[in-house]
Amino acid sequence: MNDFSHLQTPAFLVDKSIVEQNCARMREKARVSGVVFRPHVKTHKTAEIARMQHGGALGPITVSTLAEAEFFAGAGFKEITYAVPIPPEKIDRAAALAQKIDTLNLLIDSEAALRALEQQKHVFDVFLKVDCGYHRAGVDPDSPDSVRLALAIARSPSVRFRGLLTHAGHSYNARTVDEILRVAAEETACLTRFRSKLSMNVIRSVGSTPTASVVDRFDDVDEVRPGNYVFYDAFQATIGSCTRADVAVSVLATVVGSYPERHQAIIDAGALALSKDLGPNHIDTKFGYGIVCDLELRPLPMHLVALSQEHGKLETATPPVVGTQLRIMPNHSCLTAAMYDVYHVIANGNVIEAWRPCRGW
Amino acid sequence: MNDFSHLQTPAFLVDKSIVEQNCARMREKARVSGVVFRPHVKTHKTAEIARMQHGGALGPITVSTLAEAEFFAGAGFKEITYAVPIPPEKIDRAAALAQKIDTLNLLIDSEAALRALEQQKHVFDVFLKVDCGYHRAGVDPDSPDSVRLALAIARSPSVRFRGLLTHAGHSYNARTVDEILRVAAEETACLTRFRSKLSMNVIRSVGSTPTASVVDRFDDVDEVRPGNYVFYDAFQATIGSCTRADVAVSVLATVVGSYPERHQAIIDAGALALSKDLGPNHIDTKFGYGIVCDLELRPLPMHLVALSQEHGKLETATPPVVGTQLRIMPNHSCLTAAMYDVYHVIANGNVIEAWRPCRGW
Repeated sequence: MNDFSHLQTPAFLVDKSIVEQNCARMREKARVSGVVFRPHVKTHKTAEIARMQHGGALGPITVSTLAEAEFFAGAGFKEITYAVPIPPEKIDRAAALAQKIDTLNLLIDSEAALRALEQQKHVFDVFLKVDCGYHRAGVDPDSPDSVRLALAIARSPSVRFRGLLTHAGHSYNARTVDEILRVAAEETACLTRFRSKLSMNVIRSVGSTPTASVVDRFDDVDEVRPGNYVFYDAFQATIGSCTRADVAVSVLATVVGSYPERHQAIIDAGALALSKDLGPNHIDTKFGYGIVCDLELRPLPMHLVALSQEHGKLETATPPVVGTQLRIMPNHSCLTAAMYDVYHVIANGNVIEAWRPCRGW
Repeated sequence: MNDFSHLQTPAFLVDKSIVEQNCARMREKARVSGVVFRPHVKTHKTAEIARMQHGGALGPITVSTLAEAEFFAGAGFKEITYAVPIPPEKIDRAAALAQKIDTLNLLIDSEAALRALEQQKHVFDVFLKVDCGYHRAGVDPDSPDSVRLALAIARSPSVRFRGLLTHAGHSYNARTVDEILRVAAEETACLTRFRSKLSMNVIRSVGSTPTASVVDRFDDVDEVRPGNYVFYDAFQATIGSCTRADVAVSVLATVVGSYPERHQAIIDAGALALSKDLGPNHIDTKFGYGIVCDLELRPLPMHLVALSQEHGKLETATPPVVGTQLRIMPNHSCLTAAMYDVYHVIANGNVIEAWRPCRGW
């Protein structure tokens, strides 16, 4: 029996040795590949894990909000890429932060954004965001307009052109490792193809946990930025980025209602404890809101079929009695972690530390 | 143009006068109906709005977590119902709180839970949770076992039996006001039917925002506990609980990427700013993750088709330019509000206050 008895549920558990393993494996792959390792910190948002991502050092990182950028700058990180295109309203705040650290890289994908940066006194380091097929943000790598924008950035005296950055978010739509590998190939190829049209030796930066996890080494690229890999989750284990044994996080929950006559139970982990992410429902439409496990994280024959604000509904042949504690392997660890103000760090089944993530924007 | 320019986006906006109207309307309906008004505070989790729900007084409230119970007790509220079945692990904490206020009502729906309460020194006030058709928590009102449990509670010298409590959560599955009215009729009828088998004059407590919103008055019931009505949201407006003009909250977001060639734009409000609640997709499978509006909260011909952690993807014929500010009417205000550590309170388009909600468990 694990020693979680003093924790109020729902509680977010982080297995330290699994995080360390995940961190070491990805860092080593980047080192062997000879690429810059600039991991994303948005999944965990803690100074403790950001240092673990770099084996204890304060290396380059990637963030998803300016609040994270400020938080990690305060924790001593000096090389930060803010990997969401910046709107004009946020430039002053970014400039103030840039003056406190060595480098704050910004992302742009339009001439309007370039013009906005050029109106600032601060000379920003910028990456051009490239769309490698995800079709969220970024310019089309095969459009002449994109080449023109890249050259305009390169020629601008008001910014420093650092490179091309892409995110293969469509790797999340994969069903198999082979499908992830195809996305990984295009992720790097599109940046190399685009860069060749520029005849400039700028950085090619890629990053998504599925693609970074399945490749044997990082080829044809200069920098990698995975983030979710520190924790992984039920989604990543299902599409093939990792095994379930690599998933470092779980939500400790307690059964608060048990209804054998309708083969259901209620736990005290609902939408605010897990997030309403549907998980890999492109592979299994009945996947549910996470994998229900016992205290040793062994999957149980129970389906988490519905979430309301503070209730999770389980379906199972023989519902556990009220008071039973369960661990839920979350569908999407980035969204689940963000619901907690404290992470309970466990080692060998004991709670050894409490870490506090950055929150807000 | 509204004066939101100093706010960092995403930001959660609360229109004070609409909240006041929503609060006054529901409170007045309860007063005219002669029922006890014990509104839920889980949607907003702020002392300011809990007082508005009672017209400035510190009246009875309903909470969804012990953290809320403690927060509102600290704010002076003395009559609190914790409306999630309590597991044995949380009883000590509940007992400590119960001693600081006038009444802490607990919810149980099993003999095991009754036995756990009986082992405590503190004599708790308890409600029996009844399932009126939602099939989440609660006992079957038409089962002899439920009558036996109610009588066991009533006979127990270790608890005070206060009444029967139900939540018509299945009203959220309705498509029309008529369907909500049918759920409302069963919500009250099942408690009356069950109570008649007990021959006891215990409280019949009901509460769901759809049912409480569409009935003209509260008949055949003793206490009502709606919560979402203070804010409402895109979901409630779609199923008919309210009009869109009654929705008091929105998320202020900024366009950070604009892609006319693919008729898309990206805003800086993603899954952590809005929640991944699918909204009324039982009525419209293409509803999207909220209603996209201009700064005056007029709906725009734009669909919020996808959310990742910090990005929301819009589809629209002519995407707005980078820097454009939009307001998103959220699908589920309870889940969206919970993502923010501060609410920006607006009146006549100006930000006048900042309120800080309770968080965590």
